[in-house]
Amino acid sequence: MKVVSSIEEIRVSFVPTMGALHNGHLNLIKQAKQQQSKNTLVVVSIFVNPLQFGPNEDFDRYPRNLKEDLEKLKELADCVFTPEIKNIIGKEELIKMDAGPVSKVLEGKTRPSYFDGVLTIVAKLFNIVQPDVALFGKKDAQQLFIIQQMVTSLNFPVQIISIETQREPDGLAYSSRNKYLNSEDRKISLILFKTLNTGLEEAKKGSKITKILKEMKIYFEENNNLNKIILDYLVVVEAKTFRQIEEDGFSGEAILLIAAIVGGTRLIDNIDVKIGC
Amino acid sequence: MKVVSSIEEIRVSFVPTMGALHNGHLNLIKQAKQQQSKNTLVVVSIFVNPLQFGPNEDFDRYPRNLKEDLEKLKELADCVFTPEIKNIIGKEELIKMDAGPVSKVLEGKTRPSYFDGVLTIVAKLFNIVQPDVALFGKKDAQQLFIIQQMVTSLNFPVQIISIETQREPDGLAYSSRNKYLNSEDRKISLILFKTLNTGLEEAKKGSKITKILKEMKIYFEENNNLNKIILDYLVVVEAKTFRQIEEDGFSGEAILLIAAIVGGTRLIDNIDVKIGC
Repeated sequence: MKVVSSIEEIRVSFVPTMGALHNGHLNLIKQAKQQQSKNTLVVVSIFVNPLQFGPNEDFDRYPRNLKEDLEKLKELADCVFTPEIKNIIGKEELIKMDAGPVSKVLEGKTRPSYFDGVLTIVAKLFNIVQPDVALFGKKDAQQLFIIQQMVTSLNFPVQIISIETQREPDGLAYSSRNKYLNSEDRKISLILFKTLNTGLEEAKKGSKITKILKEMKIYFEENNNLNKIILDYLVVVEAKTFRQIEEDGFSGEAILLIAAIVGGTRLIDNIDVKIGC
Repeated sequence: MKVVSSIEEIRVSFVPTMGALHNGHLNLIKQAKQQQSKNTLVVVSIFVNPLQFGPNEDFDRYPRNLKEDLEKLKELADCVFTPEIKNIIGKEELIKMDAGPVSKVLEGKTRPSYFDGVLTIVAKLFNIVQPDVALFGKKDAQQLFIIQQMVTSLNFPVQIISIETQREPDGLAYSSRNKYLNSEDRKISLILFKTLNTGLEEAKKGSKITKILKEMKIYFEENNNLNKIILDYLVVVEAKTFRQIEEDGFSGEAILLIAAIVGGTRLIDNIDVKIGC
């Protein structure tokens, strides 16, 4: 039992997850503890949200290991919320969020109601937990953008904190889906991060959008031996609007984003850049 | 300044309105005061929501009289929230609520995004005001149903209280749009309530759905002199689901609903009935 006397410590920091916790999650949760005080109340939810999986996606085989997750959280979280599906998604028709135009591109293009499903559950969890702050990783950059847009649009009384993507020593972003990769796929999947880094280096040199995109594409193609990786998208978006940028006139904060399929597993990654600054 | 020492009195009762306050609103607000204690904090919002008007509807000429409204609220509300449009509806793309299947019928049939607009603003107001309870009149029965559905679906931490429709001495339901009626239209508009009452009397006799509908239609047609009233719909819905009922097998709680245009003004009314009980 925790006894607190300061107002800051009784604030609630919230980290919604789908479980299968990796170092990326654990870092989010450590940051949550520090949000309003040195010892803020941390609530973590573990819920594999069926609304954000398409009919042919990996809902059934998505990694679940509650026992292991709870062990990892023992020293980090004050409360873990593990709702049952039937209590979150009732039998009755659910009124959903409409995630708007940004939800139709990139991740939303191949997964039509993905972000509607994400927002519907995040809205529910915000209303249930009523946190002061909620933390999300930058790895899901489009999700982070759309959640912030929902909070702003609908005035949810919660502050969204974004946390840098955590990476393995070689640079691969932590993801629960990395578990699907065999050792060869694991090795070649590093091309995603290296492609983004190529773009980052170009941006640092002051290169324009078309040059950055061109260099990233060359790097990707030259290193995609035997075409084992299927590229879904490789784009630059404006950080403020998530609008895809293809013209050279742009300068300002942007995000390089990549999505690709490695051995049947879809991976995404992204990196912040400043263009023309 | 109000000084309170009990927990119940510091609870917040909320009545969202579009202003042009009539006795129906004032009754809602009086009920709000009594919700959790004899003297609960009452917040009333006045905001003519542009998102719930179609391009050819009466947004511009919708009655507005803030000075008169504030005078009426002086002794009834503790706080009146009168946000500016620009602070509620920003320039940026707004993430909206998708009001789901019930929003597509009846009121939603002729007004396609009407309920999406209602829910988006109600969600915003709930998040801004963060009330313990919110009160809505039964006159807008479909709106009340959909708002309750949103609260349940997304776990908004607010209790929805529904209040009986208030009527003028002759039975016409109070509505801000009654101001549009000239004296002749005002007189003939009573047919709406009388048609519903015909249905209620039939239901009390134990009549089945088809008979109730038939008697209401006969009453309406016989009294619609010179066809001055254009009927939009006259239906029975199940109270629990808002599903339209046309078959005789049904028994249980239902709502008789009517919408009609009188001298260019669209009026709605409804009445609760028990069928076959």
